[in-house]
Amino acid sequence: MKAPRLVAVILAGGSGTRFWPLSRKGHPKPLLRAGGRASLLADAVARARRFAAARDVWLVCGAEHAAAMRREAGLAADRVLVEPAPRNTAPAIALAASRIAADDPDAVLAVLSADHRIPDAAAFAASVRRAAPAAATGALVTLGVEPTRAETGYGYIRLGRPAGPKFRGLHRVARFVEKPDRARAKRYLEHGGFLWNAGIFVWTARSILAEIERCAPALAEALEPVRRAATRGRALGPVLARTWPRMPSEPIDTAVLERSRNVWCLPVKWRWSDVGTWRSLAEELGVNGAASRALEGSALFFDAPGNLVRAHDRPIFLLGVEGLAVIDAGDALLVADLGRSGAVRDVVARLRKHGWGDLL
Amino acid sequence: MKAPRLVAVILAGGSGTRFWPLSRKGHPKPLLRAGGRASLLADAVARARRFAAARDVWLVCGAEHAAAMRREAGLAADRVLVEPAPRNTAPAIALAASRIAADDPDAVLAVLSADHRIPDAAAFAASVRRAAPAAATGALVTLGVEPTRAETGYGYIRLGRPAGPKFRGLHRVARFVEKPDRARAKRYLEHGGFLWNAGIFVWTARSILAEIERCAPALAEALEPVRRAATRGRALGPVLARTWPRMPSEPIDTAVLERSRNVWCLPVKWRWSDVGTWRSLAEELGVNGAASRALEGSALFFDAPGNLVRAHDRPIFLLGVEGLAVIDAGDALLVADLGRSGAVRDVVARLRKHGWGDLL
Repeated sequence: MKAPRLVAVILAGGSGTRFWPLSRKGHPKPLLRAGGRASLLADAVARARRFAAARDVWLVCGAEHAAAMRREAGLAADRVLVEPAPRNTAPAIALAASRIAADDPDAVLAVLSADHRIPDAAAFAASVRRAAPAAATGALVTLGVEPTRAETGYGYIRLGRPAGPKFRGLHRVARFVEKPDRARAKRYLEHGGFLWNAGIFVWTARSILAEIERCAPALAEALEPVRRAATRGRALGPVLARTWPRMPSEPIDTAVLERSRNVWCLPVKWRWSDVGTWRSLAEELGVNGAASRALEGSALFFDAPGNLVRAHDRPIFLLGVEGLAVIDAGDALLVADLGRSGAVRDVVARLRKHGWGDLL
Repeated sequence: MKAPRLVAVILAGGSGTRFWPLSRKGHPKPLLRAGGRASLLADAVARARRFAAARDVWLVCGAEHAAAMRREAGLAADRVLVEPAPRNTAPAIALAASRIAADDPDAVLAVLSADHRIPDAAAFAASVRRAAPAAATGALVTLGVEPTRAETGYGYIRLGRPAGPKFRGLHRVARFVEKPDRARAKRYLEHGGFLWNAGIFVWTARSILAEIERCAPALAEALEPVRRAATRGRALGPVLARTWPRMPSEPIDTAVLERSRNVWCLPVKWRWSDVGTWRSLAEELGVNGAASRALEGSALFFDAPGNLVRAHDRPIFLLGVEGLAVIDAGDALLVADLGRSGAVRDVVARLRKHGWGDLL
């Protein structure tokens, strides 16, 4: 059996308001440089290119950002699928699978996010390759990341029994678990057998479309004209404009995976973060009780450990403070307790009311 | 006896490095706007004008800042006395007294600082007028501020016995006390009879010059050519250039007051602050556990009390932080714990080493 053809589908539909003031309506989270030299999106493309040919990297993103995203990703225009409006991950994945199935229904899709951070790209690609044979024979594979702390910000996958020789290395999924409270997260960590649900999937276009038919009939129905247009090689813009409003807005997890009996998990051990808040980014960058970090620009720390700083056009000097995010976006400056950085979203929600709608 | 002529001498020689990054070599503390619409210097001039005619307000400042200070103070050029180099308050006061004595040795000088904050200018002027008759008959009067807290950042005056009918309302000074530790400051507050030494003096030009002769002979000797030039109506620049390097650098307190037997204290009760640090400025502006304040510019506070913010060309948003100074000077931004704001001086001392000498 020849190695299946690997195709990457990069989802870039999220807005990431919690990274305000750097993330904006017109400059969403995937475009942020998060400590690396490249943006999160460019990193995701580089990761995809470890296992997929250039023409086999696809991007799904919103209409507003399509031009900027395409430039940043360095993809051909016909590899960018534009969602007329955000509808969560199920319609985005269904759209990509429909388009790719028109060329090759047996292509193995690796679905990844444009705004996660996975430092070890080689290990990531190896895991995708490891999942591919099972995916090629019909399994829906989700990657489960071995937890390193009692994290309450992620959903979990409870591992079931090993899959046996047919899908070597995979496990059944016993169940998907919502974000737990602190006590439960601790138990998961101590108990073992609970993995972080990273939202990274490996499956063929054919399998996921079939499972959408089975588990999500409303989505399948709304999708039908898109599949037809794709099969006939038509441009998808006009049909999406008509059908997209009818797509149920739902994550693939609840729409399909939790209802399917064909979901398998590949446990992986590399470092992964969804970089959900300034705090998680700070942790990714090694900010701790002894160290502060500058994301960009010049910063000087005087007796000031545990801070994440982003300077813009002027240096930032910290004196005697700890655990802060100090983010200068050029037209707005945020000083936030890193422990409260989830609430940045609430600040953003109130900007317009305070007369700062132009900073959204 | 007619009311004595009141003359104001505003000392503006300090640099105020603890207000970095707003205070700079070329933009010292008296030029800062500290919450009011005007700078500290302009406030001091307005205070002086409550008891002195426009031509009777004098400013003593360093050569570097003379032009900017004069503009800000709105004084005639011949009312600005320029020190070739900083030499602390004794030479500055001696210079002003020498120059003013040439016109009117019996003028009563009220010596005040360009960088203090006294919200009640009327009460301040009333105190100066109250001290004037005693000063006119030869007393050296220092104003002592009734303490409102156990402050360790100020020197104290231990009050002696009341002066009796000759100098009604005045007291002898039992002694001057250095900045105390916390326990001692508490005792002073509970005990009473200890006042803050605010460095505000009322005396005639003749009296202070005579006392300088008596108590500070080295200063008097270095001053002699200056007095002569002033008496003859000559420009002081050339003689100061020659004699200034010989002036002993010393505060008037140790050079004269602590050695003199002719020093009296007028207790006063108005609010006074030497605005020594970002923290004391924050307190002056009403920053506390329930409130934050913006010194200038736009700031929004989300669950962030007790902060002092100065925005420049971009709004500053605070989230979940407390007790910070966030000071955007345009070319440098400081984020400091208000409780550590005395250490701003140490940051400034290390700027050059870190390659930021241009921000001094």
